[in-house]
Amino acid sequence: MGKKLTKRSEDYSKWYNELVVQADLAENSAVRGCMVIKPYGYAIWEKMQAELDRMFKETGHENAYFPLFVPKSLFEAEEKNAEGFAKECAVVTHYRLKTDPEDSSKLIVDPNAKLEEELIVRPTSEAIIWNTYKGWIQSYRDLPLLINQWANVVRWEMRTRLFLRTAEFLWQEGHTAHATKDEALQEAELMNNVYAEFAENFLAVPVIKGVKTESERFAGADETYCIEALMQDGKALQAGTSHFLGQNFAKAFDVKFTSNQGKQEHVWATSWGVSTRLMGALIMTHSDDQGLVLPPNLAPFQVVIVPIYKSQEQLDAISQVAKELVQDLKLHGVSVKFDNRDTHKPGWKFNEYELKGVPLRIGIGPKDLEKRTVELARRDTLTKEFVAKETVVDTVITLLKEIQENLYNKARDYRDSHITTVDNFEDFKETLDTKGGFISAHWDGTTETEDKIKEITKATIRCIPLNAKNEEGICVYSGKKSLRRVLFAKAY
Amino acid sequence: MGKKLTKRSEDYSKWYNELVVQADLAENSAVRGCMVIKPYGYAIWEKMQAELDRMFKETGHENAYFPLFVPKSLFEAEEKNAEGFAKECAVVTHYRLKTDPEDSSKLIVDPNAKLEEELIVRPTSEAIIWNTYKGWIQSYRDLPLLINQWANVVRWEMRTRLFLRTAEFLWQEGHTAHATKDEALQEAELMNNVYAEFAENFLAVPVIKGVKTESERFAGADETYCIEALMQDGKALQAGTSHFLGQNFAKAFDVKFTSNQGKQEHVWATSWGVSTRLMGALIMTHSDDQGLVLPPNLAPFQVVIVPIYKSQEQLDAISQVAKELVQDLKLHGVSVKFDNRDTHKPGWKFNEYELKGVPLRIGIGPKDLEKRTVELARRDTLTKEFVAKETVVDTVITLLKEIQENLYNKARDYRDSHITTVDNFEDFKETLDTKGGFISAHWDGTTETEDKIKEITKATIRCIPLNAKNEEGICVYSGKKSLRRVLFAKAY
Repeated sequence: MGKKLTKRSEDYSKWYNELVVQADLAENSAVRGCMVIKPYGYAIWEKMQAELDRMFKETGHENAYFPLFVPKSLFEAEEKNAEGFAKECAVVTHYRLKTDPEDSSKLIVDPNAKLEEELIVRPTSEAIIWNTYKGWIQSYRDLPLLINQWANVVRWEMRTRLFLRTAEFLWQEGHTAHATKDEALQEAELMNNVYAEFAENFLAVPVIKGVKTESERFAGADETYCIEALMQDGKALQAGTSHFLGQNFAKAFDVKFTSNQGKQEHVWATSWGVSTRLMGALIMTHSDDQGLVLPPNLAPFQVVIVPIYKSQEQLDAISQVAKELVQDLKLHGVSVKFDNRDTHKPGWKFNEYELKGVPLRIGIGPKDLEKRTVELARRDTLTKEFVAKETVVDTVITLLKEIQENLYNKARDYRDSHITTVDNFEDFKETLDTKGGFISAHWDGTTETEDKIKEITKATIRCIPLNAKNEEGICVYSGKKSLRRVLFAKAY
Repeated sequence: MGKKLTKRSEDYSKWYNELVVQADLAENSAVRGCMVIKPYGYAIWEKMQAELDRMFKETGHENAYFPLFVPKSLFEAEEKNAEGFAKECAVVTHYRLKTDPEDSSKLIVDPNAKLEEELIVRPTSEAIIWNTYKGWIQSYRDLPLLINQWANVVRWEMRTRLFLRTAEFLWQEGHTAHATKDEALQEAELMNNVYAEFAENFLAVPVIKGVKTESERFAGADETYCIEALMQDGKALQAGTSHFLGQNFAKAFDVKFTSNQGKQEHVWATSWGVSTRLMGALIMTHSDDQGLVLPPNLAPFQVVIVPIYKSQEQLDAISQVAKELVQDLKLHGVSVKFDNRDTHKPGWKFNEYELKGVPLRIGIGPKDLEKRTVELARRDTLTKEFVAKETVVDTVITLLKEIQENLYNKARDYRDSHITTVDNFEDFKETLDTKGGFISAHWDGTTETEDKIKEITKATIRCIPLNAKNEEGICVYSGKKSLRRVLFAKAY
């Protein structure tokens, strides 16, 4: 247990950093910008992985694994992609160390072990994968190719923050190949929908589906679909992206197939990914000044039982009740931990599980044994109630569902009340300064205006919402004609 | 479908290489020594991961994630470990590329983006993990620390082979910290037992548990437990290792704890790992000249149903029967694929699934519909039988169990008949040349003799079996006194 957390209202950023460390989710490592994901944090990531993996397989995808390294000549093949990642990539130049002749306890890079061609640690795998697909795709019978990879990637970011922006992060990257443009577009949109469904049903994070403007697109994509969430400090967070890559990579790596009409054509591609960044979205959407708040669908354990006792005799009696309850809850699919450690007092445990965001806490003391009750505490509302022993399991099941819904609804209400429609640049700036959140405004469609607005306000166009109505208007900055509103926000 | 496989008796090594590629398990990539694990191969690895992960969690371990990179100063901290891996490690020296001023379509390493300290791509994670544990361990209450990591590692091997020895491979590495030497020793042995159980019950690969000699130990370990398997060509394969690391890393990284007597003591450590090398063991133990043979417990699908038809009408009728069967098998926990693709003929499919080692193949043709039968073919014995439709599910369940056992028994019989006890060096050499396998022989306990034998015969001491009897004898090479027999073999 660390010291009390900084309040969100005092310093949201400091609150986040403290929370991530104190709730045992992650910490900075000895490697600049790289994090250690601690067991409790990793258990949440594993739950995310399991659900996403299930959803990918249900939509026909298979997993595979491609090399960590990309030879420089492949890396540079797709020009825009290379340009987008060249400035932040880790480069392997040597394959051996040797003893320092000046200090035998030290090692130095062996100058005789220089690689003929440098290797880039993958920042994303399109290049190495499309170079592989070249050997896998000959005929329309080989399509579609629907593959996903769970992997680590490295992007040498200068300013890093745990989960949100780290030099190394964990992610999944889907890479699919299709015979037609339409099919690839459908795939890109399908996977964006899968991400949205996952975010809303598991993270309990409401998201807006949209497409990126040209300047915010993935380097090498013709269209980037995205899901955008809103954090409690009014800043947006891009939670997942799905790219329609056109024939860009197929052309760069010369991947053609024989169509069923016998014609040689370039293949159409998509790629899509979500990362450990989702951990940041999860934490920032629901947590409070007491610590983490976890949606039951992703909590490593949904219920914790803490015995309150003064004698061994009391503990024995409580343990019997607790163990029956554990068994009963598990039978009903509820994950539960019985914390009977005698190294820590009940009060300490209460604080710890509050900090760690366990959805429900059950306290059992000697009086509960007499009255045949338990004390049930909800993490999301910080409320408590006494519940008759025989109804505990039913109550827990009902409450877990209720908590999941409550977290989503609360986040959605916050998000909805932070989408402000504005029609002039003064209102735009004032809203951004005083309220934050998404600003729905007309934009003339040019990168020039987008850049100007960013320069002045630090807000970027988060997306052109997929459900945006056609509505003629006047660009909030340039006064030029606009066909629909887009969403601006400051973003993580 | 590629061409026919080279026969094992002709060229075992060529057979292996062809099989791995043709059965869609893996292939070489554009990066020297790194492989692409293809979806079918990766599906087997996922099954291995799932079982191992379950076993690790059942024995109290949690997963976490540590950085891919190890700063050079940490890498060199544990001297023996550093010495062991320095000669084969990939080194990151720069963090940016820039456009080549002489050719704007090319990228070069930006000399202004040189790292102050080089980063080693982890060949194993003891260094980065023990540097982290320093912050996690203060008191005996923090122990034991039982953590596992699923990750990729890189060792710049000069001669590589798919799955068996690759520059990058996937593995899990457990890293535990304990208050006492005894507890750490027990942990190391426990995890070696977990590996043995996994190898025998899932891979159907019989293994010998033992400890390594000093010269074969993991760099930085005080004792290395291992499981050793025997391939069909008479060569041994180390399938997993579990190391007792003593206080070596705790001392190198100054990790101390306050004991329950209030004393400051160095922590005791273990580490243990298995890797995608297990795929090589699996393939080489069971497969035959027709292709892969998979144990049902790890097959991506255990049963494949192939319809045999000439008209759409026939296919419709067969499909109805097949789909009922699929549902029924799934209900009974059998994984099954119905291959109704009309792009390939039944004969082609039969060959493909034989090559891919699917344990059971069910063929259904028009005559089967009449007779209410199906044709059931076993991959392990290459035998076929007709089975009445209503008994198919029961038969499949029984056969899957039988195949799993049969593969294990066959491998164990082969292994047992290839352990030869020899008492002089002539017999030693002759056995090695003519029969291969394990040679049980007396050894005087010196590295000098071990090296000499290796130099002359290429055989190494695979292990000192844990169940070795105390039996005084004479070293097969030096004639000096020996206390027990050890196992020699040529090895992968």
